[in-house]
Amino acid sequence: MIRRLQIILMMTTIISTTILAEEGMYPVSEIHTLDLEKSGLEIDPQKIYNPDGISLIDGICKIGGCTGSFVSDKGLILTNHHCAFGAIQAASSEEHDYLENGFLARDLSEEISAKGYTVRITESYKDVSAEVLSVVHDSMDYAQRSKAVEKKKKEIILEAEKSKPGIRAEVSEMFIGKTYVLFIYTYLKDIRLVYAPPQSIGNFGGEADNWIWPRHTGDFSIMRAYIGPDGKPADFSKNNKPYQPRTHLKVAPEGVSEGDFAFIFGYPGRTYRHRTSHFLSYEQEVRMPYVVSLYGWQIDQMKKISESGRTVALKHVDRIKGRANTYKNYRGKLLGLERLNLADLWRAEEKKLQAFIQSDKDRNAKFGTLLDDIGKVYADLRKTSGKELWLDYLKRSSIMMQFALTAYESAQERLKDDLERESSYMDRNFDRTKERLVLITDDYHEPTERILLGHMLKSASALPEDQRIPAIDRILKSDDAEKDIGAFMDDAFAASKLYDKNVLEQALNASPEELADMNDPFINFAKEIYPSFGELKEVRRTRQGRLDGLHGNLIDVKREFLSETFIPDANRTLRLTFGRIRGYSPRDAVTYYPITTLDGVIEKTTGETPFNTPAKIIELHQKKDYSDFKHAGLESVPVCILYDMDTTGGNSGSPVLDARGHLVGINFDRAFEATINDYAWSQDYSRSIAVDIRYVLWVTEKYGGASYLLYEMGVR
Amino acid sequence: MIRRLQIILMMTTIISTTILAEEGMYPVSEIHTLDLEKSGLEIDPQKIYNPDGISLIDGICKIGGCTGSFVSDKGLILTNHHCAFGAIQAASSEEHDYLENGFLARDLSEEISAKGYTVRITESYKDVSAEVLSVVHDSMDYAQRSKAVEKKKKEIILEAEKSKPGIRAEVSEMFIGKTYVLFIYTYLKDIRLVYAPPQSIGNFGGEADNWIWPRHTGDFSIMRAYIGPDGKPADFSKNNKPYQPRTHLKVAPEGVSEGDFAFIFGYPGRTYRHRTSHFLSYEQEVRMPYVVSLYGWQIDQMKKISESGRTVALKHVDRIKGRANTYKNYRGKLLGLERLNLADLWRAEEKKLQAFIQSDKDRNAKFGTLLDDIGKVYADLRKTSGKELWLDYLKRSSIMMQFALTAYESAQERLKDDLERESSYMDRNFDRTKERLVLITDDYHEPTERILLGHMLKSASALPEDQRIPAIDRILKSDDAEKDIGAFMDDAFAASKLYDKNVLEQALNASPEELADMNDPFINFAKEIYPSFGELKEVRRTRQGRLDGLHGNLIDVKREFLSETFIPDANRTLRLTFGRIRGYSPRDAVTYYPITTLDGVIEKTTGETPFNTPAKIIELHQKKDYSDFKHAGLESVPVCILYDMDTTGGNSGSPVLDARGHLVGINFDRAFEATINDYAWSQDYSRSIAVDIRYVLWVTEKYGGASYLLYEMGVR
Repeated sequence: MIRRLQIILMMTTIISTTILAEEGMYPVSEIHTLDLEKSGLEIDPQKIYNPDGISLIDGICKIGGCTGSFVSDKGLILTNHHCAFGAIQAASSEEHDYLENGFLARDLSEEISAKGYTVRITESYKDVSAEVLSVVHDSMDYAQRSKAVEKKKKEIILEAEKSKPGIRAEVSEMFIGKTYVLFIYTYLKDIRLVYAPPQSIGNFGGEADNWIWPRHTGDFSIMRAYIGPDGKPADFSKNNKPYQPRTHLKVAPEGVSEGDFAFIFGYPGRTYRHRTSHFLSYEQEVRMPYVVSLYGWQIDQMKKISESGRTVALKHVDRIKGRANTYKNYRGKLLGLERLNLADLWRAEEKKLQAFIQSDKDRNAKFGTLLDDIGKVYADLRKTSGKELWLDYLKRSSIMMQFALTAYESAQERLKDDLERESSYMDRNFDRTKERLVLITDDYHEPTERILLGHMLKSASALPEDQRIPAIDRILKSDDAEKDIGAFMDDAFAASKLYDKNVLEQALNASPEELADMNDPFINFAKEIYPSFGELKEVRRTRQGRLDGLHGNLIDVKREFLSETFIPDANRTLRLTFGRIRGYSPRDAVTYYPITTLDGVIEKTTGETPFNTPAKIIELHQKKDYSDFKHAGLESVPVCILYDMDTTGGNSGSPVLDARGHLVGINFDRAFEATINDYAWSQDYSRSIAVDIRYVLWVTEKYGGASYLLYEMGVR
Repeated sequence: MIRRLQIILMMTTIISTTILAEEGMYPVSEIHTLDLEKSGLEIDPQKIYNPDGISLIDGICKIGGCTGSFVSDKGLILTNHHCAFGAIQAASSEEHDYLENGFLARDLSEEISAKGYTVRITESYKDVSAEVLSVVHDSMDYAQRSKAVEKKKKEIILEAEKSKPGIRAEVSEMFIGKTYVLFIYTYLKDIRLVYAPPQSIGNFGGEADNWIWPRHTGDFSIMRAYIGPDGKPADFSKNNKPYQPRTHLKVAPEGVSEGDFAFIFGYPGRTYRHRTSHFLSYEQEVRMPYVVSLYGWQIDQMKKISESGRTVALKHVDRIKGRANTYKNYRGKLLGLERLNLADLWRAEEKKLQAFIQSDKDRNAKFGTLLDDIGKVYADLRKTSGKELWLDYLKRSSIMMQFALTAYESAQERLKDDLERESSYMDRNFDRTKERLVLITDDYHEPTERILLGHMLKSASALPEDQRIPAIDRILKSDDAEKDIGAFMDDAFAASKLYDKNVLEQALNASPEELADMNDPFINFAKEIYPSFGELKEVRRTRQGRLDGLHGNLIDVKREFLSETFIPDANRTLRLTFGRIRGYSPRDAVTYYPITTLDGVIEKTTGETPFNTPAKIIELHQKKDYSDFKHAGLESVPVCILYDMDTTGGNSGSPVLDARGHLVGINFDRAFEATINDYAWSQDYSRSIAVDIRYVLWVTEKYGGASYLLYEMGVR
């Protein structure tokens, strides 16, 4: 079992030495420490990142939860189809089904507003750890510590935003409880859809192929950012003009080959590589199995309901897609955790660390109970995890409860000073919060709602005695939980109109008294259940405070133990990762090549969703009409590429750049075995997937007929 | 789409030039025409086949429907686990579950009789085409022609067997309606089970992995042939002694590597490469979809019933396994036929052949309507296929109807002269026919029987007006078919005892009058339905006669057209195929390596059937206790090997021999894409699978603890 042994050896190495050639999501502040030229970069590293001038990273943006690249001086953005999905879906109707048929704006005037989308460009960053931690005192309890840090961060943000109107500030925690960085972002609010291929290209393979290599998905869309006539960020308006980025990326129609050096800039979401085995076991044994079971069931239900027609199906497509993505990701992670036996490996490392701590009296005095203390936090969490997970997944499971709880909380929070509020209710965020919620009303479908909410209520009725939720117990009047829940839902759905855009907006803007006057049964129920959320918030604040302090210490002692520097876990801030175009062996006797082709698209095509390639693509393939985008060796148009770079969620839409810094692909997924990336990087399994720029250009030109976009990108 | 194009090009080439390097199941009579040394054979070809002396083929035998190899001078036979499956199952009980736990005879005295098993060794062969065809006259109609050929073949067989008692003769049709060869076989009847690994090794991967590469199945068993004390073939007796074959194969514990030359001797069952597009379309559009649908449903039903306990499950395991095998095979074929578009390719070839025929007046006069005439046969067949398929699958679907129809037919046939009878009722075969049937009583389970027979009766009730079966219509007394069928079955199952061994034997030996006196409802029903089978037999005889003549002509004109010799389709006679140990690319960006390892077994192991590796194997793997059977490059024990040789069903158990003629594997399956082999051989997809001899030896020695068998094989 060579491969598994290699992995085990390697995993140990990773944990103890941290940085191998291809591992690492480097913050921009660390780029100067890397020898990228030795790895294969052919341009001056200053050209890719230069804090004092214009460099490649000025062409990267964050778009929604994804990453995007500016590819023209008129604000043209390349990102994934699945990143633009919400915009395409919102613009679609039964007459104009842009998901089904794709969308092309023939000129600027035809571009459609991508409602709810924003674009964020990193302007600068600054270490503010000392300032943030100045408010922490030994006398504070955990909850106080947590609250104080939260408040200080908000102050720093507001001060930064005040000093430079139009920008947005954020304080990102780099190492838990240890280091904090203030990022300043330009924030654009008028984003439009330019070109989207049909789902049969952009989501080819659908859920079946999600997290899978070999992949044949043309997961790209083209958008554009606009600014106000005065050159300042502005809401959508006909008078706005295309945004001119400081720089934009050059698209490389010649693409890459196996073994080529490549790098990625992007905004990876979250990784957990600096956590402990206690955290990992909780994820593996409790949280992920809960979500896999819940989402698996919900997906089945929504798929059944979707069979009743296209209109109903459209209401569920986004939710199914989102849940299925998490579902498969977690299953991949659970498989990977078991395969690598990662919790055991981490435990073994922690044992060594503990021995190191105990080998010195002073060190032992300071850190001796550190690992045990972290263990206790998770032991406590396990005791109430049933209730906690239920509260976490109530809003995610029921649209009506999401509306009602947000409306109730909004009214409560907006009574407080701006700085004291939950972030989404602060004045600077509240409009976006409302806008996002109102968009969801389109997805409301009462039968689904009854099934999903009913299921949640029933599972709450089965919680053990010490985790009961009083609001649920008040519904359960008799011995027959099913009947009581049914009666509650009958009354509530009969009386509530909260799914109506106007009613929802009214509720979101209401004061507590006005809300009470609306007498909506879901809002009334939200009021009853709200104290349980309040208690949970307090529990979490205390836990966070404990963990912040403990993890701060953990980083200190690990640094001493390993005599190495670390790079912090991903945290939605701009990162660089580099590596090579590279296949892998997923299992005994199987090898994957790192470039797929149009031939493979045709091979997978069945005519049935999600393998229903458009007739025009089949025709172009038959005619071998590959334009200039054929890969010489493969004698076909490359569709997707695979590489050993270190990515995670949030890297979706990230540009894949070649040795010259030219754009050769758009990152959109990882291989199944690489879902484990969030916990550990594996030389053998950590592979990410991009749509090849050649496919993007070929589809846009030959299928979409949008040659003008290739001119705008400088390819023609 | 390079690969598909290659295939299409290649398929065309195959059809027109017939013999490529690795294609071909060569009859022994053709071996002298091959340049095997050029291909890689390192020994004198006379050593592998020599009609005038002893050669390797004398070490090959046919065992049941499979092939086996003698590997010691005491009649020790290596074959597949799935070939010995029936023997292992028959010997198993709830106390001694040899399927579950494996079986080992510690010495000769512990070997168990493999009931119903025979071993056949090819002694000689002789072309008897002229003799067979001498009975055919132009004045005969099709049915007469067919009957005359059948009778002549029987005469030749009986004459041959009379001249040399103890041997068995068979006349095999090599080219339909054209060439016939008389084969003389030694026929051994006392076969015993020596060693079988547990199913968790011998059937590791089960249905999930069946027809799949990469494979990790230890599909082997060890048996032994016995003869009477007088040295002549004899039925089982304690006084029998191990059979000494003329020669036996040398086992090569060092195995093979990628790219090595290899060859296979075996008894491949049936291929259809010399048929027409009319035949192929009927298979693809009518027959295989019918079977896939019927068997898919039956498998589901039997699996459900099997959940009720191990005893019930054991009654179904054989039937489920058999049907699942066909089911997946047909699905693979249907996929392959569609992928390769084979019917269209054949049609295009036939168009060229037709043009060639019409280009010459005389040729046109003789063959002008040949292809159309074949087309008409299949057009006629399509008109009544519903009824015909139903009659074909009635016996296969219902054990009681199999018993009843056989008993009824037996009584009728045995009224005739021996030579006039259906083959299985001839004196030389009747004991085997009865023995096989009686063994099936072990599998009888009334609830299954009611479901499967009920389903067949219901589908017969839905046949169109012109294909009605009178016996069924007599059951359908009212408008409610379901009710009528239910009533018929209630009565029949209440009264019949035909599932009882003794009652069945009595019925099988009864005269028509005695049978009538038994008054068994199923036999009575068999009598009513029997005329429909009689009519079908007549229809088929006519059809066969037509096709025999037409195919004879087809071979003549194709030979002229292509100026080439052909090798005949597989027909259960001894064949040679050769090629290399070789992987393949099943689809875009995926490559399969041709050797799997024990590491892969562990990787697939889940602990759940069919991926439940025995603890001892896991332990041996952990200790890296590979004995002498490690592959140097792979650093593990090889488990299965893949090669581009040309095999089909019946090649199961065939020895895979290296360049020196030493045994390096036991063939047991094909890759999914190679199920298409029956219709066409593909350079890219036709890959077959063997269990590696190193795994056979390692399991037998380290897991089974049967070192004495390695001594007997000369490995130790």
